[in-house]
Amino acid sequence: MVDFNAMLAKAAEAVDQELEELLPAGQELEHRLFDAMRYAVLGGGKRLRPFLVIASGEIFDIEMAQCLRTAAAVELVHAYSLVHDDLPCMDDDDMRRGRATVHVEFDEATAVLTGDALLTLAFEILADRQTSSDPEVRTNLVLGLAKAAGGHGMVGGQVLDLWAEANPLDEAGTVRMQRMKTGEMIAFAGEAGGILARARPRQRQALRMFAHDLGLAFQITDDLLDVEGSAEDVGKATGKDAAAGKATIVSMLGVDTARDRATLLSRQAAAHLNHFGDKANPLRALCEFVITRDS
Amino acid sequence: MVDFNAMLAKAAEAVDQELEELLPAGQELEHRLFDAMRYAVLGGGKRLRPFLVIASGEIFDIEMAQCLRTAAAVELVHAYSLVHDDLPCMDDDDMRRGRATVHVEFDEATAVLTGDALLTLAFEILADRQTSSDPEVRTNLVLGLAKAAGGHGMVGGQVLDLWAEANPLDEAGTVRMQRMKTGEMIAFAGEAGGILARARPRQRQALRMFAHDLGLAFQITDDLLDVEGSAEDVGKATGKDAAAGKATIVSMLGVDTARDRATLLSRQAAAHLNHFGDKANPLRALCEFVITRDS
Repeated sequence: MVDFNAMLAKAAEAVDQELEELLPAGQELEHRLFDAMRYAVLGGGKRLRPFLVIASGEIFDIEMAQCLRTAAAVELVHAYSLVHDDLPCMDDDDMRRGRATVHVEFDEATAVLTGDALLTLAFEILADRQTSSDPEVRTNLVLGLAKAAGGHGMVGGQVLDLWAEANPLDEAGTVRMQRMKTGEMIAFAGEAGGILARARPRQRQALRMFAHDLGLAFQITDDLLDVEGSAEDVGKATGKDAAAGKATIVSMLGVDTARDRATLLSRQAAAHLNHFGDKANPLRALCEFVITRDS
Repeated sequence: MVDFNAMLAKAAEAVDQELEELLPAGQELEHRLFDAMRYAVLGGGKRLRPFLVIASGEIFDIEMAQCLRTAAAVELVHAYSLVHDDLPCMDDDDMRRGRATVHVEFDEATAVLTGDALLTLAFEILADRQTSSDPEVRTNLVLGLAKAAGGHGMVGGQVLDLWAEANPLDEAGTVRMQRMKTGEMIAFAGEAGGILARARPRQRQALRMFAHDLGLAFQITDDLLDVEGSAEDVGKATGKDAAAGKATIVSMLGVDTARDRATLLSRQAAAHLNHFGDKANPLRALCEFVITRDS
């Protein structure tokens, strides 16, 4: 585990540096927007999705510069979704990763626009030829990200999640909601290396299935941490899902069964990597990390 | 003028039909999102930006199906920007085009997510091979739209506009704000036909400059209508900019000088079309329309 944490930290550092360079800065009047974009993105985090992009790219020996730009785009979309989710009209969170959320640190209007600008920047980065000299690859990245992030993916899942506060979902509904809300973006992150490599459809599909199972395992351990963790450990209010009456797999199955489910999903995720050789070892280590992490 | 209004209406009808087909629908739980997306987009409007895409495409004999998809993407971004601009934390508008705004008809959370989903869908449409069989064209469309819509374009302009409420801009600042807030998207719409056609850089630049001047003329007549129009005519509260203390070219230059400026810009816009033959006549008619319209 020590090695894996070091690997994750190293990838996070490289991604943070890439984000630092890609995010706009300036002394113009709109610097307030740029400041808020940087605040939202550069506030730490495990950079799990960027790690998936980088590690899947390494399977195919993709240049690190290409992986980092793609990883940055994925992280920008993740960051935008958190900024909007935290808004008073949504989850109404004041704290995230131990810091004030964007609408608290700046204001609500700036938070809405910051999310909008981050989402837009992600597509700008992917469409730029620096991400790949092959325009077919760039357009496939844009298409994949848009599908994962849009109404049939992340945003649709967020709508289901809000709706579920008043109309609790059953287990199948909860799995579907989480698949949309977080699973599709994680699946895209895992597939991204294959898209950059123009890998065969079967390889891309194996990566998607790996990342999909991994994402579900990650979500369950997130919910377990929410129930069990202390506010200090996870850096945000805990027990919040339960307080909001939100159904999670943990609240439906109980802690022990949920933990078993996460372990099963993690093994299943690793099995999808059998197509790939030793170069997939970082992704195998990630499967282990996801179910043993404590934050 | 009769002919031009008919031409504009015909283009708007074709775009509305395209949008109708491209917007998601379904009986799933997320239908509330899809309903709100349709409500936001299909509520009428002049479809000025789509007209620019179609008419610029016609110069190069681009297939109508390609123009319509591109036009739809541009209109989705315009619609998303209105949904977010209308939010209570932004301009706080209850009415738009004679109907309740999205956050009033649905709720605030749905309005935020609806804007997010519309923006994302725009990029999905452009990246899809149905928009162009040439991936270089698709990626250029994505790049152009992202730059026009992002922090250095529309979203940045919106930040300046909000900031100006407390810190009035001078004339140069106001022109810069409007160029970012509405001008960049209009310039992209005008250039889109040239992107679809892989036109020479000089031609693309001429189209951008045409659309840029046209956009400024359009903005000034918009402000003139805001000052002079009745609420009934323009379908939203008028005099609102003045009430909000927002600087406009009209409030700075006075009505007569502003009207002269709009006429000059319209002529300048038409002059950029000298590169093109009779096929640019619809765009020339648009230059005339923009300064003589009464709504």
